[in-house]
Amino acid sequence: MPNPINHQFRLAARPIGMPKRSDWAYTEEPAREPGENEVLVKILYISLDPAMRGWMDNRRSYIPPVGIGEVMRSFSAGRVVSSRNPKFAPGDCVSGILGVQEYALTDGTRITKLDPKLAALPVYLGTLGMPGMTAYFGLLDVGKPRPGDTVVVSAAAGAVGSVVGQIAKIKGCRAVGIAGGAQKCQFVVNELGFDAAIDYKNEDVVVALRKHCPNGIDVYFDNVGGEILDAALVHIKMGARIVICGGISQYNNTTPVKGPSNYLSLLVNRASMIGMLVLDYANRYGEAAGEMAGWMAAGKLKSREHIVEGFENFPETLLKLFAGQNFGKLVLKIADA
Amino acid sequence: MPNPINHQFRLAARPIGMPKRSDWAYTEEPAREPGENEVLVKILYISLDPAMRGWMDNRRSYIPPVGIGEVMRSFSAGRVVSSRNPKFAPGDCVSGILGVQEYALTDGTRITKLDPKLAALPVYLGTLGMPGMTAYFGLLDVGKPRPGDTVVVSAAAGAVGSVVGQIAKIKGCRAVGIAGGAQKCQFVVNELGFDAAIDYKNEDVVVALRKHCPNGIDVYFDNVGGEILDAALVHIKMGARIVICGGISQYNNTTPVKGPSNYLSLLVNRASMIGMLVLDYANRYGEAAGEMAGWMAAGKLKSREHIVEGFENFPETLLKLFAGQNFGKLVLKIADA
Repeated sequence: MPNPINHQFRLAARPIGMPKRSDWAYTEEPAREPGENEVLVKILYISLDPAMRGWMDNRRSYIPPVGIGEVMRSFSAGRVVSSRNPKFAPGDCVSGILGVQEYALTDGTRITKLDPKLAALPVYLGTLGMPGMTAYFGLLDVGKPRPGDTVVVSAAAGAVGSVVGQIAKIKGCRAVGIAGGAQKCQFVVNELGFDAAIDYKNEDVVVALRKHCPNGIDVYFDNVGGEILDAALVHIKMGARIVICGGISQYNNTTPVKGPSNYLSLLVNRASMIGMLVLDYANRYGEAAGEMAGWMAAGKLKSREHIVEGFENFPETLLKLFAGQNFGKLVLKIADA
Repeated sequence: MPNPINHQFRLAARPIGMPKRSDWAYTEEPAREPGENEVLVKILYISLDPAMRGWMDNRRSYIPPVGIGEVMRSFSAGRVVSSRNPKFAPGDCVSGILGVQEYALTDGTRITKLDPKLAALPVYLGTLGMPGMTAYFGLLDVGKPRPGDTVVVSAAAGAVGSVVGQIAKIKGCRAVGIAGGAQKCQFVVNELGFDAAIDYKNEDVVVALRKHCPNGIDVYFDNVGGEILDAALVHIKMGARIVICGGISQYNNTTPVKGPSNYLSLLVNRASMIGMLVLDYANRYGEAAGEMAGWMAAGKLKSREHIVEGFENFPETLLKLFAGQNFGKLVLKIADA
């Protein structure tokens, strides 16, 4: 069998503001046969994550930027097509940082075997993947909610936020979500079981938080930054914890990031704003995935994926994140099997 | 003996921006004789603190605002002139929240007896008073420095900052101060023993922090906010703690507070920004004052007061804080004995 052609999206230029089509190079090359210990994976699903925007900028961060000319970094899930690694066999389902391409060659230490009977592959990029782990450790280890606490989360219909609110409910908290549009807000309350949702596109968030958090906010899990972070700061309680997980409203700025004007509320309320990155919890992913899979099996934790098809649609699909057009975990499906 | 006349500064109007003379009412009334359990204190020294600006605004905070027509709130130190409280006798030196006035009548539960042989009265408003307690608990309990850590403090020649850096040195840390002007910077290094000082009026703080904190910042103790907080955020290390003690650069804004644009550095560095208020540590002031007095006696902790004379100069003297014109703890001396 001839080597299959591997199409790729490579970073062609560092975006200024929102990534443009011309910031990408669409390339092709034959997929190589695995060398010793290597595994060739056919990618079926590519995860689209807000963090990808940060990886495109040339600045010091928690991980080196993607270099110009390199295949764009992404989490992906797929199927092993050939293997010279004893731990993996053709047909195995795996996930890992495999890049925005159709085939990935990897050394076998960077992929995790998935059980497709336990959950569909896209779920392993969402609720049972990095977003789910982020929600789990960010809420429980950093936010430290106690039963009865009020937990507020932004981007509540997104991959991380939807899980944060559901775990808050499982832990006996009041969960209030902030999302864009009536449909997402209804989903968050009616499908996911949040106590309330605030539509930031149509409501005054400061006023709505006062209404839905009559005792104030104990934990605010922030995925968005900007005006919504400032609104939450107005309502934090004494000793509140603000988990800084992301700031998607600011990722494509061409002007300086809007820092939280109300940050002195931290002083008034002896509160903390704490940055978190899921990578720090890698040695505990198994523990979290086991518990979350149990919650899913028990019907306590629901997962929603927003699947777009077609590898060539990668650049436009990524932009849906920044326009708030995804509803649940955004995944690009690029092959059937 | 006729009752002495008590002059007072009362809040006449809520300031917009920098407090103006017309925001104050200068009043007089006879000082009352103490009732049962009461103590009449002749105030000798009035503490001028950045926090006073916040108390003048009509907004929810950690303490109710000073009402229009009320005597301005302040920490003060003085001498008991008459007492019907068995715990206090005429001649006792005391401090407490006694207000911007010449005499204060208090019930005896809100004042603390001072030992004028251990330290001069103004020291009890600075290093052995609230600013010193703020430095002690803010650095040690909130900042949690470990030996070898790099501790950076803003307003380093001020009442709180000067103590923060000295305690950092006592605890085996590298101490870097940020202050305005060469004279303050020399004082901080040559007199107080900081390892380095940065003159924010004449240096690029981002560049200077890189030079003086080659391993990054473990603890940043912030008294000022604004651009300097943002500069520190550029250089924080993994797991750094930012103690939010104050934000004096923003207290007289007539435009919105400048939030820290670089706050997403908290995420990249898994760092925390934690608000603190000294009042939470009231039951441990004795412990801290004892240890700090020991350090002073051993020559490890130096105290500097900036004393201005004349009760009538209160409004203008307060403004020195916001112009960075104080050098050490700013105190208004209003009587000799």
